[in-house]
Amino acid sequence: MATRKAVEVYLDLLSQPCRAVQIFLRCTTIPHTVKPVALRKGENKTSEFTKLNPMQKVPVMVDNGFVLTESDAILKYLATNYDVPEHWYPRHPERRAKVNEYTAWHQTNTRPHAAKVFILEVLMPRMTGQPAEPTRVQKALVELSGTLDKLEDMFLKRQPFLCGDDISLADLLAVCEIMQPLGGGRDILQDRPKLLSWKSRVQSALTDSFDEGHAVLYRLRDKSKAKL
Amino acid sequence: MATRKAVEVYLDLLSQPCRAVQIFLRCTTIPHTVKPVALRKGENKTSEFTKLNPMQKVPVMVDNGFVLTESDAILKYLATNYDVPEHWYPRHPERRAKVNEYTAWHQTNTRPHAAKVFILEVLMPRMTGQPAEPTRVQKALVELSGTLDKLEDMFLKRQPFLCGDDISLADLLAVCEIMQPLGGGRDILQDRPKLLSWKSRVQSALTDSFDEGHAVLYRLRDKSKAKL
Repeated sequence: MATRKAVEVYLDLLSQPCRAVQIFLRCTTIPHTVKPVALRKGENKTSEFTKLNPMQKVPVMVDNGFVLTESDAILKYLATNYDVPEHWYPRHPERRAKVNEYTAWHQTNTRPHAAKVFILEVLMPRMTGQPAEPTRVQKALVELSGTLDKLEDMFLKRQPFLCGDDISLADLLAVCEIMQPLGGGRDILQDRPKLLSWKSRVQSALTDSFDEGHAVLYRLRDKSKAKL
Repeated sequence: MATRKAVEVYLDLLSQPCRAVQIFLRCTTIPHTVKPVALRKGENKTSEFTKLNPMQKVPVMVDNGFVLTESDAILKYLATNYDVPEHWYPRHPERRAKVNEYTAWHQTNTRPHAAKVFILEVLMPRMTGQPAEPTRVQKALVELSGTLDKLEDMFLKRQPFLCGDDISLADLLAVCEIMQPLGGGRDILQDRPKLLSWKSRVQSALTDSFDEGHAVLYRLRDKSKAKL
């Protein structure tokens, strides 16, 4: 095998999918270089970054000249092309299909619903200078609650992780979204013992990479709490 | 190899992802049985169907007892576990990653934006008895237009199909969404020569399965046009 250059990833750790990529790389010890792209400073809109990703979004991965966007595609590429434990993205057809089933569902459920709460409680107030609108937050929390119910009652019904007996890309993507409202001081798992024990299983499996990946979010949480 | 029972798929052909599954099965001649589930009659909410898929959604695939939901996961499972041409979901790591990149992007772009126009122009008026609201339709069309621009300027910039030189699952999922507003009599590709020639390339590659899969949508279009 020819010597491989370290994978380059362009990330903003306040973005949930970026954290998933960062945590995966740390946890699996794939040699990599992080290039920070601060969304709040518009660094995703510079001409240099736009040349790399015309969509002006993070994460972006560059592996030996191959440019790839979308966390879903990046994680599956890394898991199949690097020597990482099988459980992340199983080769067994049915188990792989179950991971693909969750990751597809995730895009229109866990991801938008958890993100909405963060947008309303953190980003919008920051942009407009106005406090969050309680009725809109309430509506977003109800939608999110429906998604959390499905995670508990369907995906975690008979198994410790979302797609089986061991952690997979599905759990990693999910946990990073579920953590996001914490940036506004809100713990959405407070009254959800089933999801809480899932989260602690995920956190143990990810070891230090979990807290490292979430350090920026923890700082934002502390600031939000100080304001209250 | 043991004799394999035909794949069973539960579909409503007015649903875009269901059409993608149906067209794929016809086009690749994978032996299959279609079980129709009429969403407008609430057949997805019967206790029998809910036992099969607690999410009460179509499509659902059953392959030798293995139950799978989400069109994205179903198509990738079929493409990797049945003997179908390589171009649908290439084994080559970078080409497969590009298909995964599009299919992830699709979920939060092509799919919701094209569906919104259909919901506002066909489903809502049917449910409420009120005509479509022009300002909401206009807003949805502007959002959809941004997505169609990206399909043309980014994905199709230098290649005949969304992910390369040949048709893949990406094109199949995309074309079924892009056809959907036609159910309300609206052709969103009218002034888009680049996407129009892509569509005709896709249609040629899919042969008769394309029109067969869209027969129900064509009937709805004809009814919508008769009303105008």
